[in-house]
Amino acid sequence: MTFPTVGVIGAGQLARMMVAPATELGINLSLFAAHSEDSAAQVCDHTVGDYQDSQAVLAFAKNCDVVTFEHEQVPQSVIRTLEANGIRVYPRADSFIFSQDKLAMREKMDELELPNPRYQKYLGGKAMLEFPLIAKAPTGGYDGRGVWVVNSQEELEALPTPLLLEEKLDFTREVAIMVARSPHGQAATWSPTWTVQRDGICTTTVTPVPELSDELAIAASSIALTIAQGINLVGVMAVELFQVGDRFIINELALRPHNSGHWTIEGSKTSQFEQHLRAVLDLPLGDTSRTSDWAVMGNILGGEKSDMYRPYLHLMARTPALKFHHYRKKVKPGRKIGHVTLLGDGDNLVELIHEVDHALDYLSGAIDE
Amino acid sequence: MTFPTVGVIGAGQLARMMVAPATELGINLSLFAAHSEDSAAQVCDHTVGDYQDSQAVLAFAKNCDVVTFEHEQVPQSVIRTLEANGIRVYPRADSFIFSQDKLAMREKMDELELPNPRYQKYLGGKAMLEFPLIAKAPTGGYDGRGVWVVNSQEELEALPTPLLLEEKLDFTREVAIMVARSPHGQAATWSPTWTVQRDGICTTTVTPVPELSDELAIAASSIALTIAQGINLVGVMAVELFQVGDRFIINELALRPHNSGHWTIEGSKTSQFEQHLRAVLDLPLGDTSRTSDWAVMGNILGGEKSDMYRPYLHLMARTPALKFHHYRKKVKPGRKIGHVTLLGDGDNLVELIHEVDHALDYLSGAIDE
Repeated sequence: MTFPTVGVIGAGQLARMMVAPATELGINLSLFAAHSEDSAAQVCDHTVGDYQDSQAVLAFAKNCDVVTFEHEQVPQSVIRTLEANGIRVYPRADSFIFSQDKLAMREKMDELELPNPRYQKYLGGKAMLEFPLIAKAPTGGYDGRGVWVVNSQEELEALPTPLLLEEKLDFTREVAIMVARSPHGQAATWSPTWTVQRDGICTTTVTPVPELSDELAIAASSIALTIAQGINLVGVMAVELFQVGDRFIINELALRPHNSGHWTIEGSKTSQFEQHLRAVLDLPLGDTSRTSDWAVMGNILGGEKSDMYRPYLHLMARTPALKFHHYRKKVKPGRKIGHVTLLGDGDNLVELIHEVDHALDYLSGAIDE
Repeated sequence: MTFPTVGVIGAGQLARMMVAPATELGINLSLFAAHSEDSAAQVCDHTVGDYQDSQAVLAFAKNCDVVTFEHEQVPQSVIRTLEANGIRVYPRADSFIFSQDKLAMREKMDELELPNPRYQKYLGGKAMLEFPLIAKAPTGGYDGRGVWVVNSQEELEALPTPLLLEEKLDFTREVAIMVARSPHGQAATWSPTWTVQRDGICTTTVTPVPELSDELAIAASSIALTIAQGINLVGVMAVELFQVGDRFIINELALRPHNSGHWTIEGSKTSQFEQHLRAVLDLPLGDTSRTSDWAVMGNILGGEKSDMYRPYLHLMARTPALKFHHYRKKVKPGRKIGHVTLLGDGDNLVELIHEVDHALDYLSGAIDE
């Protein structure tokens, strides 16, 4: 048997969702987990270790045919140690920096002549952009953390530097598009997704983006493919966009399977998780077409309830087509502990969104039935 | 956390294909495997033991919330030991007998007034049915083993008794239908499937059955639901049927996920594997509607090739929508080592079948490209 072993640094829900396609494809999956109780480590072969320890990661990687990761925290130095030792590791360190350093990403988008907001690197002194503006820690932020709306020079000076300052856009909505690319340079995008945000966290996605013109859908795809090639991507990447009227401005990149692509598990012929495995193994990419007219995904955020199994009795009876994904993480208020997806054809998008919202409210304890 | 643990006796490919839905639903899956190298044991928590050892199985079962099994060989005595000890085990021993004993099944179908072929229990002496006839070992056969076409009294007398003798039907084609039922008595069927046979082994399935009248599709569903209720089924069951002109005659029952239901993984909103877990846990059943007009499934049988990974390069490039399921069993000639599924909409059934046949021929080594 020559089925390869893919090593994944990290054992959160993104690694957990790789288990199903790896099992189907017959590919061995091996995780480098922080703890045995981690979401994916509960259901997959794993080694426990510190992902900041280059030598420990290297020892793990030597037993894998290819290594990838599922979170942004893996240090550049660790990835470069693997590369220097001849390990096939994707995405490459030179690509992954654009997922880790927002300032480097902005400069790269300029180089690729792609639409940035106005921005500046800020080390102190008077801001060049007008207030209110957006200030971001260049590294380390996610889900709204490390991002501030700044209304005045005084507020700005209270923040730790360095910062990336960006104009505060008056955008229509937020859209994300997933793209995959292999070492051979084959690339494919999925349908763009409307990412509905609440308090800086994506609560729901609707795919395809309702009432998006063909021109804009193609523009989103074109931006994603240009970035994928421009940064020499291997694996999947989410490109988060602001729609401002009839154009898109790039918000952020995430070089890994992403929440905005969870709908692909049921909603596309090839899920982002299968595609990521195919890409890092340099296999031909799978068909990214949709399996239905609409896919609505909702994030289950921890709330009042701690028992996430009992709600099945009501929800499965009410909505037999609803698909559940529980990450088996400890329930903490506001934490993403799972997601649900509902597909539909034809004219029923409002109903699909209503059913997903109901499920999320019921799971969080906001309503009792 | 109150997510339950489902114990599965057996760790073949059917248990392997339960791993994905269990992971998604957050349900713990624990296997009682013959060997650590078994298909499902490679990717799932398991205990190694002998499934004929009641006490070993009982010790395993005591750590599970509910126990089920994936093959017919589990002895009645083992299931009854679990039941006597208050273990929730599904299907029940009283139901499972109809999957194990073909003669008991025939008598039960008579009792339910469902269409049997003419048959007799044979212990010796002159056959009451005309030759050629079909002789079956009442227990232990599968994939054509334990089934003989008998042309004469002499041939018959050379076979070991007891036997179930059945008239040799001049059937149009073979059809199977999957049904699920929960302890609450909720039941659901999927679309009937055309099971294309070669040398007594199902090579391909086409769903729905091409050019089947609505009346016959409803008749198949009605037979399956009548049996499910009549035998007090819990879990999923395959009902194998002979189509003889415009009516169905019951061939065999299998009270477990079944090869004729593999298409449901991609082809139905709820797969047979997820549904089996829902049913044995007494959760509401999922939506069994199809996700596309056609689903074609082909069994990968071991052939000349021993490397099952390398063919991905050609097949994934040629057919990006083809879905692979490798069981990671040792390649032996004629052994089912995986399957592929291809979905399609509209008028392209011939093309889908052609692509699946190509994939199977390429994987077996019958053709090189």
